[in-house]
Amino acid sequence: MTAQSTAVSSLDDYYSRHEAEILEHFFTFLRFKSVSSEPEYKKECAACLSWLQGYLADMGFEAERWETTGHPTLFASWMGAGANKPTLLLYGHYDVQPVDPIELWDSDPFEPEIRDGQVYARGACDNKGQIFYAIQALRALLERDGQLPINVKLVIEGEEEMGSAGLQGILEARREDLRADYLAIVDVGLTAADQPAVTLGFRGIVTMDVVVKGTLGDLHSGSHGGMAYNPLHGLSELIAGLRDESGRVTVPGFYDDVDELSADERARYAFDFEDANYERDFGAKPTGGERAYTAIERQWIRPTVECNGIIGGYTGDGFKTVIPAEARAKLSCRTVPSQDPAKVGQLVAKALEERCPAGLRCSVTVHPGSGAAMRSGPDSRVVQAFAEAYSEVLHKPCQYILCGGSIPITADLAQASGSEIVLVGYHLDSDNIHAPNEHFGVQRMRHGFLTIARTIEILGKPTGT
Amino acid sequence: MTAQSTAVSSLDDYYSRHEAEILEHFFTFLRFKSVSSEPEYKKECAACLSWLQGYLADMGFEAERWETTGHPTLFASWMGAGANKPTLLLYGHYDVQPVDPIELWDSDPFEPEIRDGQVYARGACDNKGQIFYAIQALRALLERDGQLPINVKLVIEGEEEMGSAGLQGILEARREDLRADYLAIVDVGLTAADQPAVTLGFRGIVTMDVVVKGTLGDLHSGSHGGMAYNPLHGLSELIAGLRDESGRVTVPGFYDDVDELSADERARYAFDFEDANYERDFGAKPTGGERAYTAIERQWIRPTVECNGIIGGYTGDGFKTVIPAEARAKLSCRTVPSQDPAKVGQLVAKALEERCPAGLRCSVTVHPGSGAAMRSGPDSRVVQAFAEAYSEVLHKPCQYILCGGSIPITADLAQASGSEIVLVGYHLDSDNIHAPNEHFGVQRMRHGFLTIARTIEILGKPTGT
Repeated sequence: MTAQSTAVSSLDDYYSRHEAEILEHFFTFLRFKSVSSEPEYKKECAACLSWLQGYLADMGFEAERWETTGHPTLFASWMGAGANKPTLLLYGHYDVQPVDPIELWDSDPFEPEIRDGQVYARGACDNKGQIFYAIQALRALLERDGQLPINVKLVIEGEEEMGSAGLQGILEARREDLRADYLAIVDVGLTAADQPAVTLGFRGIVTMDVVVKGTLGDLHSGSHGGMAYNPLHGLSELIAGLRDESGRVTVPGFYDDVDELSADERARYAFDFEDANYERDFGAKPTGGERAYTAIERQWIRPTVECNGIIGGYTGDGFKTVIPAEARAKLSCRTVPSQDPAKVGQLVAKALEERCPAGLRCSVTVHPGSGAAMRSGPDSRVVQAFAEAYSEVLHKPCQYILCGGSIPITADLAQASGSEIVLVGYHLDSDNIHAPNEHFGVQRMRHGFLTIARTIEILGKPTGT
Repeated sequence: MTAQSTAVSSLDDYYSRHEAEILEHFFTFLRFKSVSSEPEYKKECAACLSWLQGYLADMGFEAERWETTGHPTLFASWMGAGANKPTLLLYGHYDVQPVDPIELWDSDPFEPEIRDGQVYARGACDNKGQIFYAIQALRALLERDGQLPINVKLVIEGEEEMGSAGLQGILEARREDLRADYLAIVDVGLTAADQPAVTLGFRGIVTMDVVVKGTLGDLHSGSHGGMAYNPLHGLSELIAGLRDESGRVTVPGFYDDVDELSADERARYAFDFEDANYERDFGAKPTGGERAYTAIERQWIRPTVECNGIIGGYTGDGFKTVIPAEARAKLSCRTVPSQDPAKVGQLVAKALEERCPAGLRCSVTVHPGSGAAMRSGPDSRVVQAFAEAYSEVLHKPCQYILCGGSIPITADLAQASGSEIVLVGYHLDSDNIHAPNEHFGVQRMRHGFLTIARTIEILGKPTGT
């Protein structure tokens, strides 16, 4: 048995002895309805933070509640390794997405259940499951060794699912508290459960609300059809017009700051991708986006504009022959590192407002809290430590991948903390995050625990040079 | 004082003496929540019919409840004028539209209120107000004269707002009961409250539900944006693609059966129409429909396709970065007399299904109960009688107009009853029918009463030849 495999199996034994207790604590964490974007859950968000604060304090961390303009952030630190040891800052979030459409869940999203080796609950993966195995890794090392081999800080915010505006607002004031050598964003995943991968970057995001208004009130579509310009048609035309037939975004200036892919970049991410597998997993072929790029390039390296919601007119049972006074949509853009998301949002808003048909008025609200895309280098010490730990746990060489999603606060958090960044996790595309029946694997929970614990051990070793 | 004005003023005196009581009875009628398209109101619909049945029986009518596959129809008759007098069949409906969006009503839609001379309630105009002044006209003549000068039948159905399928299904079996010389559809209106007008026709209608499906479940728009074809975009593209830039419908075959307007027709309906007045009344210019036609032609004589509702994705507070598994829309087409609405519905369904982008599936359900458009001649005896009565009541020459809306059952009812048809009423475009704050004028209630009563008197006179 190698030294590495001995180290992994010591941690694995610990996990086996404590698994029932870990899952019990995890379920308590999942039961908090910490939906950040819905005002009615404000108290649940605060209660969730308080519980986590107590949990980390019991482990021996100094745990503080940081007030923000919105939901508070939890900050915790264990600095017992001393000034000559590096500091790792772990980032996660305790807030979760809304649960609608609730009728499509097979079980209560806030009463976790294990079925076929998966924990089903809102937040099971995104992000309570992921940040909780990281916390358990710290707890195991502290219980087993009485200390950690490096200094560790945790920042667990409560507004990731709504753009992180609160944490954003206090980063500058908290630079000293946040200072670290390495920043690990424990909020991404793998392309397959047994394929180790470190994520070197993600896309940025900007979101907006669109309203198209016509007449002062709703109209009868018999008396007014053919006369009034129907806002449902106006909005459909605006959304349809955002892309041309090749899937390319038609907003003037949208691609101005987008660097074309280098041959190196195309080669690095030219993984096998089978449309048939995507269709098997998700029920439809990956036919969206720009025809000129591969599916993986469209997912990771190209910017998008997507509609995330539309509503207007009569949508209940039966029929109502109405021309509504207004129609509404929600749009988001994913951006690449060379783009400024706020600027992209303004370009889309301007295009929609300018293109609005005569007789209708379109207004677009670009939300604050957009987040830039990010890339980290594959050679940094923290990337290499995670790659080594992943390989030990999953027994395969580690790949480097990107993430199509966004973690808006990340680039600013890396800057404020002065740290090298890496993105890690065990999420899979099939986990249904942001959707009904979100779940996370019990086995991946264990692997995540092992990966974080081993990375901390590896970072604690003296550097070779 | 002329004979005509004496006749009107006798009736007007009656109305003045009874107005408080008429409004009290009207309010009782309005309080029934007879929303036919929402199953939860089934009992309210039945209760509304029973009340009306009792009301007409008390007046001296034979009143029956006719069962249908859906909500029942009320049939009532007074045949005391004898076989050598003509029979007038009056058509109306006791069902009303849903009340959503309820939050935009300034008062309870089922607790009528008079504000500024208008009765506010769901159904105040469409159709409870209109059919109720007709009933009051019959009641006044019976009370004053102890009889009617002609025979009168009433058919008041409970499914007009959902396509009249129930009444449609029993027309053939009820031919004998329905037999009449004249059929007056008391469900249309005027271009201005003081401008008498008889309506010589209306457009037909066909309605449909559209579903666009993508993946099996909702997806995260970061992880899948650019890969999955978003059903919200697919649906927007399908709806936007229904019309070209000139407002012309692009569905193959849509205009095949549409006769181009003759010079006579263009001239007959070339009324003054001021965009500025429309904008003042409704808050937007009439910029919808086909550019090649005038606003009135687009409203009355040209077919349309309109979207009446869209829903999909996340539409609550805050934001959710979701690509939904499906998106839904409701569409309706208005048709002209030379078109078969069911065929038009199939053409639209076929075009949408064929145009659905790869990776998505579109299915369209064309609802049964479509209704054909109708035209009646200006020279028939019943049209002339109403024109004379309107002129007496409003002291102006009567115009002939069309109606952009649809009364699906009408053509079949005229055929089953073997009668000459006419469309009458006191609705105004500004009454907000099918919309929040529906209302009907107290003064128009009186004028409607006078018009119906005088028409019956005129039809009771021996014909000149």
